[in-house]
Amino acid sequence: MEIGQVIARKRDGLAHSREELAFLAQAAAGNQEAADYQLSAWLMATYLNGLNEDETAWLTLAMADSGERLDLTGLPRPWVDKHSTGGVGDKTTLVLLPLLAACGLTVVKMSGRGLGITGGTIDKLESIPGFRTDLTPAEMIAQAGRIGLALTGQTASLAPADKTLYRLRDATGTVACIPLIVSSILSKKIAGGAEKLVLDVKCGSGGFMKTQPEAENLAANLVRVAEIAGLSCRAVITDMNQPLGRAVGNALEVLEALDVLEGQSGRFPDLCMRLAGITLAHAGVAGSEEEGRDRAMAALAKGSALAKFDEWVSAQSGGQTRVSNLRESLILASDIATIVWGGPAIVASKVDAEVVGQVAMRLGAGRSSKDGVIDHSVGVRVLVEVGDRIEPGQAVFDAYIGRNDAKFDPSQLLKAVS
Amino acid sequence: MEIGQVIARKRDGLAHSREELAFLAQAAAGNQEAADYQLSAWLMATYLNGLNEDETAWLTLAMADSGERLDLTGLPRPWVDKHSTGGVGDKTTLVLLPLLAACGLTVVKMSGRGLGITGGTIDKLESIPGFRTDLTPAEMIAQAGRIGLALTGQTASLAPADKTLYRLRDATGTVACIPLIVSSILSKKIAGGAEKLVLDVKCGSGGFMKTQPEAENLAANLVRVAEIAGLSCRAVITDMNQPLGRAVGNALEVLEALDVLEGQSGRFPDLCMRLAGITLAHAGVAGSEEEGRDRAMAALAKGSALAKFDEWVSAQSGGQTRVSNLRESLILASDIATIVWGGPAIVASKVDAEVVGQVAMRLGAGRSSKDGVIDHSVGVRVLVEVGDRIEPGQAVFDAYIGRNDAKFDPSQLLKAVS
Repeated sequence: MEIGQVIARKRDGLAHSREELAFLAQAAAGNQEAADYQLSAWLMATYLNGLNEDETAWLTLAMADSGERLDLTGLPRPWVDKHSTGGVGDKTTLVLLPLLAACGLTVVKMSGRGLGITGGTIDKLESIPGFRTDLTPAEMIAQAGRIGLALTGQTASLAPADKTLYRLRDATGTVACIPLIVSSILSKKIAGGAEKLVLDVKCGSGGFMKTQPEAENLAANLVRVAEIAGLSCRAVITDMNQPLGRAVGNALEVLEALDVLEGQSGRFPDLCMRLAGITLAHAGVAGSEEEGRDRAMAALAKGSALAKFDEWVSAQSGGQTRVSNLRESLILASDIATIVWGGPAIVASKVDAEVVGQVAMRLGAGRSSKDGVIDHSVGVRVLVEVGDRIEPGQAVFDAYIGRNDAKFDPSQLLKAVS
Repeated sequence: MEIGQVIARKRDGLAHSREELAFLAQAAAGNQEAADYQLSAWLMATYLNGLNEDETAWLTLAMADSGERLDLTGLPRPWVDKHSTGGVGDKTTLVLLPLLAACGLTVVKMSGRGLGITGGTIDKLESIPGFRTDLTPAEMIAQAGRIGLALTGQTASLAPADKTLYRLRDATGTVACIPLIVSSILSKKIAGGAEKLVLDVKCGSGGFMKTQPEAENLAANLVRVAEIAGLSCRAVITDMNQPLGRAVGNALEVLEALDVLEGQSGRFPDLCMRLAGITLAHAGVAGSEEEGRDRAMAALAKGSALAKFDEWVSAQSGGQTRVSNLRESLILASDIATIVWGGPAIVASKVDAEVVGQVAMRLGAGRSSKDGVIDHSVGVRVLVEVGDRIEPGQAVFDAYIGRNDAKFDPSQLLKAVS
C-alpha cells in the first residue's frame, strides 16, 4: 500500500478500508513511508469529506495500536476513566479522581496540557510543589495498585500516531473535525488501558462546542464510535457558558478543588457529584446514578475523598506536599486587582466563560501556542454567577496579576458580565 | 497574514483575495513562513473546493512574480510561445520551433522533462550529442537574438513557487485540478516573458485529458485565465488517442522530427502545419490560419525550416551536432524486436496511445517517478495507424530494446491494436 492511494480515496469521497486506516496510523507513527505533507493532505481531505463511524472506529483502534498499550490487568476492577472536552475553570478531574477512588474504583488517567482558553489538568497539578506529571507506565500501575489512582501527562510511547496527526491538524486548520476529534480522544483512552469511560462534553462559549446541537453531535459520535471500538462509554453534556466554579487559573483551581473536597457547596461541587454518580453507575458499582451520587456525597462527608486526595498528592509529590500544607505551598500572585461593578444594579444573565478565559490566558494562566510558558500563580476569581443580583460598587472579579500585568485590561473582564 | 488563515478560507469554501494568493505564492517560494504540510493542506482544500477564474489568474501572476522574470524586450517582436499538455510521441515542438523561427517569429521557450507515459521535449533533445538544455537566461536571449529561437529546461530562478507546489501536488494526489494545472502552466509562461501563447491541449488515452469535455474545460479555463492575467492565448484541442507520429522514444522522435523537416508527409506533419498556421495568425504575421499554414508549408518546401533546425541544433550543441551528422550521431538501441500481427486481417479502429506509451516507458524511454533515469536509445516505432488495413503476418511495431529488456512483453504492444 502507498500513502498516495490512501489520500486519493479520501480525496474522491470514498470510504477507507480497515487496512488503509491501519496503514495511515502506522505512517503517522513513522512506521510506514509518508511525509508530513502527505498526512496533512489526507487530513484536509478527511476534514472536507468525512469519515463514517466504522472508519472512525478503525482509525481509533489503529492509532491506539500505533505504540505501547498500558496493561492494567493486574489492577483491581472496575477501572474507570473520565475525559472532559475542556473548558474555562474545569478542574473536575482534581475532585472526581479522589472521589471515585474513595468509592472503590481504580482510576488510571492520562491528561493533557491546556491550549487557548481551556486549561489542562497537568498544568493545574504542576502548581503543586514537587508534583510529578511524568510517571512512567510502571510507576502509574504501581501507584494505582497501592492507592487506587494515578495520573500522568501523555507519554510519547502511547498512541504516537495521534501526536503526529494532532500536531499537523493544529497547523493546517483541521482540528474542528468530528471524526478526527473522536479518534484522537478515544485512541488515547484505549492505549491507556480504558475499558469504561465517562465523557464530559462541555457546551458553551468557554468550550470547544459552542452550541447544543454541536455538543450532541460530538457526544453521540463519541459514544457510537467507542462502542464499535469495544470501549463502554457514557457521555454527558454540561454547561460551559459561564466559568466552571469560582477560579480560573492553575494554583487557584487547585485551591478550589481542595475547597470542594473539604465540603464547599455550589454549582461546581454539584456537577462533580452528578458526574461521580454517573461514573459509579457506569462502572457497575452503583445501581443507579442517584445511588452513585449518594455514595459520592457520603465519601465526601466522611472525609474519605479528602484523605484519598491527600494520598494522591503525597504519592505524586514524593511526600513533599500534603493536604495539611497545600494551602501555604501554593504560590499565588500577590498583586490582586478587584474588579468592581460600575453599572446599575442587575440580575446577571451572563458571565461569559470565553471572555474570562481569554483574560486569564493573557494574564499567563494559559498558553496561546503549544510552546507557550504559563504562570501557575495568576488567574481570575469569579465572584458572581448567572442569576446573582449585582449592585453598583460590588466586587465581581479578583484578578491575580503576575509578570503579564501590561496585558491586563480590567474593562475586558467587565464585558463578560451582563 | 498567516498561512493558517489562508488555509481556513479555502477549507471553508470562500474565495481568496489577491493578497492571500500573493502570500501563498511567496510562501511556496520560501519568502513567507509556511511549512510544506501547510501548503499541501491548502492544495487539498483547493482541489476539493476549487478556485474561480479571478483567483486562478491572481495565483498565476503571483507565481510568475515569485522569482525572476525573463525580459525579452530587447528581442525582435512578435515573440511567441507554444505549450502542449503532453502526449505519447508528441515531438511537435521539435518541428514547430524552427518552422516558426523560419517564418520570422522569435521563439523563446522553456520545456519540461517527461513523467509517466508523456515524453518531455528536454529529454528528447538530450538524445542529441552535445545539446545543452541548461542555457542561462542571458544565453537564451543572446541566442534568440542571433537565430530567432532558443529552448531550455526550467530554471530554478523562474516561478519557484510553481516548483514547490508541483512537487507537493505530485505527492499528495492534487495534480488533476484544473485551476492548479492552469496556474502552473501559465505562471511559467508569464515568468518566461511570453506575451502570446498557443496551447495544444491533447485529448485522448495518451494524454492527461481523456475526454473531449475534459479537454474543452481545460482549454476554456486556460484561455480565460490567460486573458485575465494579460496573456493573449489561443488553445487548440488535438487528438491523443493514437500515438502522435510514428516514433515514441527520445532519439527515435528526434529522427522523426528531422524526417518531417525534410518533407515527410502524414498525420503528424499535418498537425505541425495546422499548429504553425494558427500560431502565425495568432502572432499577427499571417492574416488567417490558412495563410499561416501556407507560409509554413512554403518554409518547409524551400528548406528554410530545416536550415533553422540546423542553426538551432548547432547553436545549442556548440557546433558539435549539425543536421548533416545528426542521423549518424543519434544512438538507437541495436536490439530491435519486430512485432507481427498474428490475428485475422482487420481495419485498425484503435492504436492505443496509452498502451504504446506504457510499453515505451517500461523500456526506459520515460520515467515512472521524477527521479527516474531514462534511456534515450529505446522506444517504439508505430508502423500502423487507425484506418490502416492490417494483414496476418504484417509488422505493426518495431521495439527498440535496451537494458530494460526483461520488462518488455510483446503481447502488451499487440493489445494496443484492435
